[in-house]
Amino acid sequence: MVHALALAYVGTGFAGWQRQANAVGVQQVVEEALADLVGSAVTLVGAGRTDAGVHARGQVASFLHPAPLARGALVHGLNHRLPDSVRVLAAAPVADGFHARRSAVAKEYRYRCWLGRVPPPDRALFVHPVRADLDFDAMAHAALALVGRHDFAAFGLAGGVDGPTVRTLHFAAWERRGEEAHFRVVGEGFLRGMVRALVGTLLEVGGGRRAGAELAALLAGAPRSAAGPTAPACGLALERVDYPVELAPLW
Amino acid sequence: MVHALALAYVGTGFAGWQRQANAVGVQQVVEEALADLVGSAVTLVGAGRTDAGVHARGQVASFLHPAPLARGALVHGLNHRLPDSVRVLAAAPVADGFHARRSAVAKEYRYRCWLGRVPPPDRALFVHPVRADLDFDAMAHAALALVGRHDFAAFGLAGGVDGPTVRTLHFAAWERRGEEAHFRVVGEGFLRGMVRALVGTLLEVGGGRRAGAELAALLAGAPRSAAGPTAPACGLALERVDYPVELAPLW
Repeated sequence: MVHALALAYVGTGFAGWQRQANAVGVQQVVEEALADLVGSAVTLVGAGRTDAGVHARGQVASFLHPAPLARGALVHGLNHRLPDSVRVLAAAPVADGFHARRSAVAKEYRYRCWLGRVPPPDRALFVHPVRADLDFDAMAHAALALVGRHDFAAFGLAGGVDGPTVRTLHFAAWERRGEEAHFRVVGEGFLRGMVRALVGTLLEVGGGRRAGAELAALLAGAPRSAAGPTAPACGLALERVDYPVELAPLW
Repeated sequence: MVHALALAYVGTGFAGWQRQANAVGVQQVVEEALADLVGSAVTLVGAGRTDAGVHARGQVASFLHPAPLARGALVHGLNHRLPDSVRVLAAAPVADGFHARRSAVAKEYRYRCWLGRVPPPDRALFVHPVRADLDFDAMAHAALALVGRHDFAAFGLAGGVDGPTVRTLHFAAWERRGEEAHFRVVGEGFLRGMVRALVGTLLEVGGGRRAGAELAALLAGAPRSAAGPTAPACGLALERVDYPVELAPLW
């Protein structure tokens, strides 16, 4: 039987989602809590492989277990075993073909910039402090160019990307929220580091160091060096993962 | 010369604002950072004596120092010396008569309740999880009775209150914010524990365990035992302190 978990975590102390040899990924701590709870080793598949320091508000993970699992016992049993920085928000049995990553049809990320002076301590882990005199309209306008099917090679990892670099974005926009500016982006998929590279490039536009009109050229397969820097991990969070109606977990 | 600081802190690890013998108050860590920065012992006066575990987004503190202090150097010099959980948001020279507590004419507190299932880890320190089936309208209606000049003895500390228990509240209301319900209250002054006792009592109304109409009787000097329990500290934050126009720090 396939089971799904909805997860939120503060990514600050973790080397990202994925289990790895010399550092602690969120996947590992959840797998260990699951193994302790169900009494056998479990392998989790996460929908988004968030990078080191990136947060999640709506990560989805799936795993195989031969027996039904009571939702309440699963949520509370895991939260009891997990560090405070990782919370299971919900659990649900899912259809046999469900795979948290391969079944996903869209993901939403949110990048939070702090426009005020000193970020208050309850938000400091979740925002990237930027110059307050950003040209917000220029950034908002430039973001419009991102929506659609483009070659995002310029926004991949610095070392180059293996495989196809064409992705479809359904939505990309900046929102003002009090002293914060949020970049929200929804797409069928993302290259590693792509959202942070988009933000770093849009912040150049907002700071007057790059013309917004350059975005279109960057979206035609330009090299990584042509785009802006990768914005810090702390501002980014995986907000939501969407599945086709017939597979979506009924939390 | 009198100087003022605007402070925000995550109260979780602190024994409250006030310096005390066997535990660490926020006052102490800021005084130590100030002394290290300016080279002489400094006594801080805080506008609100927040209790253990209570947060602040807009605490104001004042201190005497014989020389002018550059704002930027003060803010950054202090933040460099303070733990991440305490941030100086701004600094300003103020008029000679300014006293952060005695000059204050109003304070605003906010109490955050979490209505969803599991509080996500980035908010867990700042919200009090409550039953999702609260009667929000009943709580909102009961809160209206609080505005005005009343005897709040029923909402003081459990051990009884020294001195007058009459206070004037200018504003008291519940707001829905997504999966949270916030109780916002503005008043000329508050008894120790008063906001949390008000919240504990209003949550009884929301949970159907107390009639909203009882509030009026509680506000006529009823004993503490007549009101509801003290809500947990984690949900509470001191949001803002107001001063008369002629004394207000020009941050």
